[in-house]
Amino acid sequence: MSVYNFHNPTFRGPDGQEDMPWLLTPGPLTTSRTVKLAALADWGARDIEFTALIADIRKTLLALAGCDETYECVLLQGPGTYAMEAALGAFAPRKRKKTLVVSNGVYGERAAAIVNRLNRPLEHLAKPDLRAISATEVAATLDADKLATHVWAVHVETTTGIVNPITDMAHEAKTRGRVFMVDAMASFGAFPIDMVQQGIDVLVSTSNKCLEGLPGFAFVLAKRELLMQSQGESHSLALDLYEQWQGFENKGQFRFTPPTHVIVAFRQALRELQEEGGPTARLDRYTRNANVLLRGLIGLGLQPLQETGNSGPIIQTFLQPSDSAFSFAAFYQALRQRGFAIYPGALTKKPSFRIGTIGRLDENVMRQVVAAIAEILKDMGVKNMSPEK
Amino acid sequence: MSVYNFHNPTFRGPDGQEDMPWLLTPGPLTTSRTVKLAALADWGARDIEFTALIADIRKTLLALAGCDETYECVLLQGPGTYAMEAALGAFAPRKRKKTLVVSNGVYGERAAAIVNRLNRPLEHLAKPDLRAISATEVAATLDADKLATHVWAVHVETTTGIVNPITDMAHEAKTRGRVFMVDAMASFGAFPIDMVQQGIDVLVSTSNKCLEGLPGFAFVLAKRELLMQSQGESHSLALDLYEQWQGFENKGQFRFTPPTHVIVAFRQALRELQEEGGPTARLDRYTRNANVLLRGLIGLGLQPLQETGNSGPIIQTFLQPSDSAFSFAAFYQALRQRGFAIYPGALTKKPSFRIGTIGRLDENVMRQVVAAIAEILKDMGVKNMSPEK
Repeated sequence: MSVYNFHNPTFRGPDGQEDMPWLLTPGPLTTSRTVKLAALADWGARDIEFTALIADIRKTLLALAGCDETYECVLLQGPGTYAMEAALGAFAPRKRKKTLVVSNGVYGERAAAIVNRLNRPLEHLAKPDLRAISATEVAATLDADKLATHVWAVHVETTTGIVNPITDMAHEAKTRGRVFMVDAMASFGAFPIDMVQQGIDVLVSTSNKCLEGLPGFAFVLAKRELLMQSQGESHSLALDLYEQWQGFENKGQFRFTPPTHVIVAFRQALRELQEEGGPTARLDRYTRNANVLLRGLIGLGLQPLQETGNSGPIIQTFLQPSDSAFSFAAFYQALRQRGFAIYPGALTKKPSFRIGTIGRLDENVMRQVVAAIAEILKDMGVKNMSPEK
Repeated sequence: MSVYNFHNPTFRGPDGQEDMPWLLTPGPLTTSRTVKLAALADWGARDIEFTALIADIRKTLLALAGCDETYECVLLQGPGTYAMEAALGAFAPRKRKKTLVVSNGVYGERAAAIVNRLNRPLEHLAKPDLRAISATEVAATLDADKLATHVWAVHVETTTGIVNPITDMAHEAKTRGRVFMVDAMASFGAFPIDMVQQGIDVLVSTSNKCLEGLPGFAFVLAKRELLMQSQGESHSLALDLYEQWQGFENKGQFRFTPPTHVIVAFRQALRELQEEGGPTARLDRYTRNANVLLRGLIGLGLQPLQETGNSGPIIQTFLQPSDSAFSFAAFYQALRQRGFAIYPGALTKKPSFRIGTIGRLDENVMRQVVAAIAEILKDMGVKNMSPEK
């Protein structure tokens, strides 16, 4: 018997053991067995060894982001959205000055919604989800509104996988003396990032996307100077970034109970990132995954939502065939029975489906999913692959 | 080789495998191997099977709390403090009316701090941490302040383990037409609770204390009517209890990425609670643990912080011996080397140490810890066990 939960329908994983389906989603995603095995131990949250582990993780994340000694790392229990709110609660100006949120999808919209909820002044540059936002657009907005002293941009928009040019955006923001903040939720760990060189003041990301850890916590990397200024700014006690930072500084501990098992597993995930060759090697793998998938499905006649080269390596969106034989529900179920779990729904306006290419999976898995989709569409009797006009 | 992380110093667990020390803390605590093994699988957060699992957990928690169909269960990512803030953000009146927070320790103080942070009117009945708060005191405060329409009390104060009489408090609150809210963080799962019978309108608790799951999420059980009225009340987007509830109602899903592994493990923890015989049987075990520990350490000459019968079955606090041979740091390390991790510090004013009696441990473990403490104190040369005056 496998140690895994039984699953209906069960199937064999790559090592012949019963396993869960591959998660072809933008996260949580398939992690390595060794990452999960690291979670098999009960660590004390205030224990001296756990304190050392926290220090190690904070240091590793800062190094991974190219931070110098002017930056700090604050871990925060909960999903990435909590870290977004904690960061905006600490840094978004309360009055007169504004936060410019640059959005082209659900995650950018969410940042804007948080600024609104916090009753802080918002300037919102909202664009459609079909293309990246140019740094020129950001620059023009900043020139038109000198009060927009803080900028929030999304690196990889999980809605669509689109990669926004944060280096160029940061350049425009920094040359104008603005604070530049990045939601790197779906990029950090795969896209090489150097906060010093790129001029990024604040970055938020999470344990369970490109870093290939288990879901359960997020983190904020930020200039220490900004953190110091954020004392007393937060609207929330639980999500007070300054106080959370002080907890680490003064005691080396989380203020409130952390997800210990997820954190221990995360250290293993960081080791595996290093073993793989760091973000550059990981981005290569994801890019190969995306290429195999794109070529394969385009070869079947399916049409990607975005033009070639615009969709990034994280997740691919395909338009559903207009053929009346196609049923998304049946497609989803058939894929799942073959061991591939995709998101049961899409975020775009046009009928589409998304397939993630991140997590502990490779070209071989991508070839299998292409073959599975070919079979399923054939079994369904789908002949016309082109989407509705 | 064990699947567990190596640990320095390592030692053998009850099944002869290398293991982590017993966690004799108020949480996170030692969980069963089977609970941890359930976390070994990657589940999709929006997957139909995960949605079914969430529904199952919500239903089980409601049943466990004796809720009828007028109650709802809202799960929330993060530690218990997040659920406290989410509940207070939803239910604490914004103006004119007040929230009465009844506190006799750190966790009650924290609820008061949250109400203050949210800029909502607070009435604070603050008492020392050496005894339970009486329902009479609560009743008198409510009679003196008709504007205190909402009451927040802590069931078991984790600081000291003291059990407050929430049934009587709820009775006083309800007969006066007030809303009664309970922090049951360190009690739910072990203390039988019947929200309908006891007149509890809102209860918050967490996955990783008496329910013996892994840390990573918390939950709020609340009257549906109160939840309906809370739309638009929250100061936070991430911790908006109403919107979190709507996510479950409309899609059966968490709004933001949940700690999937921790949640799957929690279902196993709920099954093991049932197998043990429910909260009554668990409370019996914890009580036996506490009695073995108390008798054993009192037998050695150590003095509990509280008078006999006042300390509850969750955690015991003992005053440090005044003997100059005693060193807490050395005591902590020696215990750890023998496989027992306690909190490296105390929350009370007098020098003390705390030993938790909850989690997957029994009288046998408690006898071992008593024997270990006897040895350690002997090795240290501690002769005078009595505390400083």
